[in-house]
Amino acid sequence: MSPTQPTLFRLPPAAQCQLDDEGRLRHFLTIEGLPAALLEEILETAQSFHTASDQAARKVPLLRGKTIVNLFFEASTRTRTTFELAAKRLSADVLNLDMATAATTKGENLLDTLRNLEAMHCDMFVVRHHQSGAAHFIVRHVAEHVSVINAGDGRHAHPTQAMLDMFTLRQHFPDFGSIAVVIVGDILHSRVARSEIQALRTLGVGEIRVVAPRTLLPREAASLGVVPFKSMEEGLAGAQAVIMLRLQKERMHGSFVPNEAEYYQFYGLTRARVELLAEDGIVMHPGPVNRGVEAESAVVDGPRSVILKQVRNGIAVRMAILSMAMRSHSW
Amino acid sequence: MSPTQPTLFRLPPAAQCQLDDEGRLRHFLTIEGLPAALLEEILETAQSFHTASDQAARKVPLLRGKTIVNLFFEASTRTRTTFELAAKRLSADVLNLDMATAATTKGENLLDTLRNLEAMHCDMFVVRHHQSGAAHFIVRHVAEHVSVINAGDGRHAHPTQAMLDMFTLRQHFPDFGSIAVVIVGDILHSRVARSEIQALRTLGVGEIRVVAPRTLLPREAASLGVVPFKSMEEGLAGAQAVIMLRLQKERMHGSFVPNEAEYYQFYGLTRARVELLAEDGIVMHPGPVNRGVEAESAVVDGPRSVILKQVRNGIAVRMAILSMAMRSHSW
Amino acid sequence: MSPTQPTLFRLPPAAQCQLDDEGRLRHFLTIEGLPAALLEEILETAQSFHTASDQAARKVPLLRGKTIVNLFFEASTRTRTTFELAAKRLSADVLNLDMATAATTKGENLLDTLRNLEAMHCDMFVVRHHQSGAAHFIVRHVAEHVSVINAGDGRHAHPTQAMLDMFTLRQHFPDFGSIAVVIVGDILHSRVARSEIQALRTLGVGEIRVVAPRTLLPREAASLGVVPFKSMEEGLAGAQAVIMLRLQKERMHGSFVPNEAEYYQFYGLTRARVELLAEDGIVMHPGPVNRGVEAESAVVDGPRSVILKQVRNGIAVRMAILSMAMRSHSW
Repeated sequence: MSPTQPTLFRLPPAAQCQLDDEGRLRHFLTIEGLPAALLEEILETAQSFHTASDQAARKVPLLRGKTIVNLFFEASTRTRTTFELAAKRLSADVLNLDMATAATTKGENLLDTLRNLEAMHCDMFVVRHHQSGAAHFIVRHVAEHVSVINAGDGRHAHPTQAMLDMFTLRQHFPDFGSIAVVIVGDILHSRVARSEIQALRTLGVGEIRVVAPRTLLPREAASLGVVPFKSMEEGLAGAQAVIMLRLQKERMHGSFVPNEAEYYQFYGLTRARVELLAEDGIVMHPGPVNRGVEAESAVVDGPRSVILKQVRNGIAVRMAILSMAMRSHSW
Repeated sequence: MSPTQPTLFRLPPAAQCQLDDEGRLRHFLTIEGLPAALLEEILETAQSFHTASDQAARKVPLLRGKTIVNLFFEASTRTRTTFELAAKRLSADVLNLDMATAATTKGENLLDTLRNLEAMHCDMFVVRHHQSGAAHFIVRHVAEHVSVINAGDGRHAHPTQAMLDMFTLRQHFPDFGSIAVVIVGDILHSRVARSEIQALRTLGVGEIRVVAPRTLLPREAASLGVVPFKSMEEGLAGAQAVIMLRLQKERMHGSFVPNEAEYYQFYGLTRARVELLAEDGIVMHPGPVNRGVEAESAVVDGPRSVILKQVRNGIAVRMAILSMAMRSHSW
Repeated sequence: MSPTQPTLFRLPPAAQCQLDDEGRLRHFLTIEGLPAALLEEILETAQSFHTASDQAARKVPLLRGKTIVNLFFEASTRTRTTFELAAKRLSADVLNLDMATAATTKGENLLDTLRNLEAMHCDMFVVRHHQSGAAHFIVRHVAEHVSVINAGDGRHAHPTQAMLDMFTLRQHFPDFGSIAVVIVGDILHSRVARSEIQALRTLGVGEIRVVAPRTLLPREAASLGVVPFKSMEEGLAGAQAVIMLRLQKERMHGSFVPNEAEYYQFYGLTRARVELLAEDGIVMHPGPVNRGVEAESAVVDGPRSVILKQVRNGIAVRMAILSMAMRSHSW
């Protein structure tokens, strides 16, 4: 995380709290510190749900009787919906709490809200928060029987997005060691980029490149194990996949980017630039896409785009993570 | 549809897209163009759900594992609730998306929203929209595996309302050929009236009358196969059923109607006017009723009123339509 | 109820309407008038759900196929959530209707809304309303097949809160006859206090004390069977349990209480005051707690506090009440 980034929550130096004594997933907060074997297990478990989803028996009774709470302090229809669908297909009961408005009218603080939900025998909190470290904060104060899944915290991490992208990449390139992946855009402020880079490294991707305006590139890029490129032309050349980041207008302050048109001119993924990828190269984006800003509309809908496949894979990957985290303390 | 009516969406000349190659229901957008046999099948299927609803086993596993999305671009507690209940009683998972607020904050357009929901393996969209043709538009762009149900689009159609009204009529008058049905109110702007008239014609109702202020009567009334009457007294005389339309205050622009009191004086259904119906004549209204505007309160709650029976029948009829549309592409 | 209290709804002299001809629970509106045996049955039924909740099979199929509607005219995340969870764990379908906004945009009145929900075959209404008597009003107008549960009406009653508190008390003190229970705070305006006092009396608690500023004590305290105390020190001495009431800022008008600091000084539950309780004495609060107003934070989180146990017990007690009320008319 950039030293300039404000955060209310202290982040732990490592992520041991994510695993139980036997090394099984207990909370899912960040990719950082997780062993490759665990990421592989997530991908394999997701594959079984993904296969089942094509068949009649889409719904499985794995989490029947369990209660999963969507605690969203920041609105997100898409992420909330995929978690809700994943939970329902595991036969869990789902509670959607819009924390922007709920409870706060009676002045209850976050910890009291958590304590109450725990007491109601809720088994899992899926948390999205605008503050980096919010999910870690909750883990430090949560009851023994509750698992926490980070659905995006500030600029820190978005680990389920990273895993569904790994799943999508793997569908196209089973051998990660031999591929080059490019991430384009606001690397500095992006929780998606941070989690992607950690996942790509852990799973041994051959080459991780980033393309960004200088103002949107973290100073410690080199130490992250990524290779920065100044231009799209250099960065895309021969790569197997490009991950376009969303230009977070709502999170941009000041003058990192002159304007959308200029951003598109230098960093937009046009049809011409797509041709620079390897012959079987794919285009990814966590969505929602700003058409004509991060990418040309024809590219978003084009044959190289796997953007909707990412959305679809998000259900199976989240089913995997929910069921694995529940397993560690329920049975 | 009146030529004066603005619409953003192009309507297809016929409604072939509603049926699959074997003539089974695939989408349910409008009554127009549907064969009488299909409408009869809906009524028969609804009858079986209606009978079951009186017994202990109200819930059936027909749509278990399926996901139905309520896509409401226009608020409607009543219609949304009956679709939600119908879906739950078929054991489907239901997702309520309030499209007046959702997603749009991130600037995602309608087609991208649809693509994402499809990718999440949602099986059916129940759509309400203020624009005529919105459901047709969605059908033209929807994936192979998704069914679309029109829950009301602009001034165009409200076919599930029409079918639950046919179901209610049939309970009282099994022989449609021998009855006269009167529709009273804002025929010009009413999607309910359009769908009712098409259903009544398709099912061979003997006589279809309309009573409306001249400004609220479509010019092509005659070609619709309906007989316009100027006064309530003439229109109601000897009829088996009267369908009162809601005075859509929120949809009225300009000076079609001088004021509510005058409307009631000329077109309000008073106890005295009800006596003009046939001896076994019934009073219908799609709800919610403006008491004292479209009808006298004593008529709404009176012995001739079947308004609440219509609501009740709405569950069984929607269960029939949801399960029939799902059948065409799922098994 | 204090004669100074305004109410739109007429309250019946007794609560016979709560029981059916065979004395089984049909509606649950108030503790007043209910026989001790029925309250005991609720506690015993809740015990069986409470025991089951610790085991794998937390979900029971008792209300499968039934529809429970949360009709909340007043926001309450906590109470709504516990009713929703209780209903889901009984396998019922749940409909959440936010009545502060719903339906009213189309000008439908309360009775029409009820009629419509009845027609949709909803089986039970869980009602919260800011007006005393609202749940009784609904019972007087509800269809034969619907049960009504009062989730709090104005200053009148909150009977499920009282029963979950009785359940919690019983866990600690099986012999009610020998204990003293103190209620502290705004007795005058509190629906919780009214229902607690009735439940404590019906179940034969040895001594019921109240501590309140004179302005917040009902004049008829004596006739309620409670012993008023002026100071916390006198009231708490040797008692087995203290129930702190929430200071309802949003319901206070005028100058009943000078300010929060002064309230805390005279009536706040400090660590020192807790020591005045019996050795095994417990601290209760219906939540959410205003820390530093009704009680010191260290007391809320301290070893005597059973506040979160109350929340947890709320699920089992509400499951008991929902299933008992449904039994009377469904099977």
